[in-house]
Amino acid sequence: MREGLAAAGEDRVRMVELFATVDAADRHAELVSTAATAGVDVHVADDRVLASLSETVTPQGLVAVCEFLDVPLDAVLTGQPRLMALLAEVRDPGNAGSVLRAADAAGADAVVFSAGCVDAYNGKVVRASVGGLFHLPVVTDAPLVDTVRRMKAAGVRVLAADGAGDIDLDRAERESDFTKPTAWVFGNEARGLPPEVAEAADAVVRIPIYGKAESLNLATAAALCLYASARAQRADHP
Amino acid sequence: MREGLAAAGEDRVRMVELFATVDAADRHAELVSTAATAGVDVHVADDRVLASLSETVTPQGLVAVCEFLDVPLDAVLTGQPRLMALLAEVRDPGNAGSVLRAADAAGADAVVFSAGCVDAYNGKVVRASVGGLFHLPVVTDAPLVDTVRRMKAAGVRVLAADGAGDIDLDRAERESDFTKPTAWVFGNEARGLPPEVAEAADAVVRIPIYGKAESLNLATAAALCLYASARAQRADHP
Repeated sequence: MREGLAAAGEDRVRMVELFATVDAADRHAELVSTAATAGVDVHVADDRVLASLSETVTPQGLVAVCEFLDVPLDAVLTGQPRLMALLAEVRDPGNAGSVLRAADAAGADAVVFSAGCVDAYNGKVVRASVGGLFHLPVVTDAPLVDTVRRMKAAGVRVLAADGAGDIDLDRAERESDFTKPTAWVFGNEARGLPPEVAEAADAVVRIPIYGKAESLNLATAAALCLYASARAQRADHP
Repeated sequence: MREGLAAAGEDRVRMVELFATVDAADRHAELVSTAATAGVDVHVADDRVLASLSETVTPQGLVAVCEFLDVPLDAVLTGQPRLMALLAEVRDPGNAGSVLRAADAAGADAVVFSAGCVDAYNGKVVRASVGGLFHLPVVTDAPLVDTVRRMKAAGVRVLAADGAGDIDLDRAERESDFTKPTAWVFGNEARGLPPEVAEAADAVVRIPIYGKAESLNLATAAALCLYASARAQRADHP
């Protein structure tokens, strides 16, 4: 809830209405008055109304109706982003949310959901992102190959993560310049990376598997890739 | 199933009985005969029996009854391990299994479950480990502080991962020798690291959070730590 309000100040999300039980309005008086001052319609409602509005089993007594404000890709690229994640037709909301969380932790500047991805504002994505969806500019419904091309045209290096990549992450990190502005592309958990995206990217990178595991899950792979870039970029300009 | 048999050959797990439908026994004739030759009791059973034996909704027609064979800590330490994970009172089976999967991918030599952890052979741990439980020697019910001390006595550097750590992972990796044999300690998802473990460890390391996220999930944090060690160790002796 606080995240929602804080993010509202940064134009990522606009809170439209706030429903609160009498108890909750009392417990969170400051939050409610901040919302009211910000022009949010505040309603007092009973527990049953709150329960019917919320997807969680034990709501906290506050439900906010928000509009998420998508960010256009051009606005993101104009801001000279150093690190981005591009989800390529990722369907699982838990995975998409976990990648958002990892991107948020790694200090990414934006996350782009391609056309064909799960809805970025699906409740499961929101919960799995643990605040990430509020912290980061999110571009949705981006045409995949066109997005890769526009990123490259803006001077961003596009690295696609794939188990069948030509170069492993550790070698890529040692041998190429990871301080450059970079967008990492993560593919669909079942089908992998669309071939036309692998083709359009600057390189296809695989996470080295040193043991017997067949693969890593998408969010873990994303964290390893994004942190590899963040590590190089932050060491360069701490 | 194949993983179970392969692991059986390495004394991680012993298959005791194998139940198969007629169809499945036919489809997997080689597997069934390998099991029989290895002294496993093979039974033909109908679908209902198989369904009652299995936790999955759509069993594959084969159910193996296995005994996992715990490995004593001394046996692991005698083998001069380079990389280990020690789970400190981790209760969530999904988290424990995901750490196993990450440890497997990072090429760890063993995973140690402390006393107070979820049962390593819980079905949810097995599934979340995606084979990791079969690939890696697993020590269970290890007394926590005593284990840390024995690891150190065996020349293993013990690094505890904690959001409140004194040094961040990137700096630790730059400034200290990550090629040394290392055990990473990962704490309980809710309570964090027990203070006596933080005290007994050589250092407490935090994952840097470059954005606004409050934390990473346990499996992601574990993957970042284990891969940092693996990267240094493998670059040193590829």
